[in-house]
Amino acid sequence: MTFKFRVIVMPRRDLLDPQGRAVASVLRDMGIKVGEVRIGKSVEVEVKANSEEEAMEIVKKMADEVLSNPIIEDYTVQEL
Amino acid sequence: MTFKFRVIVMPRRDLLDPQGRAVASVLRDMGIKVGEVRIGKSVEVEVKANSEEEAMEIVKKMADEVLSNPIIEDYTVQEL
Repeated sequence: MTFKFRVIVMPRRDLLDPQGRAVASVLRDMGIKVGEVRIGKSVEVEVKANSEEEAMEIVKKMADEVLSNPIIEDYTVQEL
Repeated sequence: MTFKFRVIVMPRRDLLDPQGRAVASVLRDMGIKVGEVRIGKSVEVEVKANSEEEAMEIVKKMADEVLSNPIIEDYTVQEL
């Protein structure tokens, strides 16, 4: 069976996010009132597995080992 | 009031996504069975507005004009 997930990888809360700060600055220059802006990755992936549980384990393994750098990033998983 | 949103910006369905293909290839080399992988951006933004409706309008404006390139990307908005 194929299961589809979205993995959201964001810079950790306690780290500066220069890309997000730059975008916030552009938005403010356009007159849009924004607070904090943070920019990360969204990865949509189809996983082949025998059960939803197995698919979720596979997604977590790939998020930990390939999609994110746990020193500077956190991730969350959404099933699609 | 402050409203928080996540804007997911993905390469359009009908376009190749070389970054996604490269990640899919790495995952397969690791023995993980994946179908298509697509990689985009996740932008978390705090918007100041007088109502949820107004905040959503502001987010759509910034997604259209700043966060995405509508020629090659689609976006979806999630309220957080």
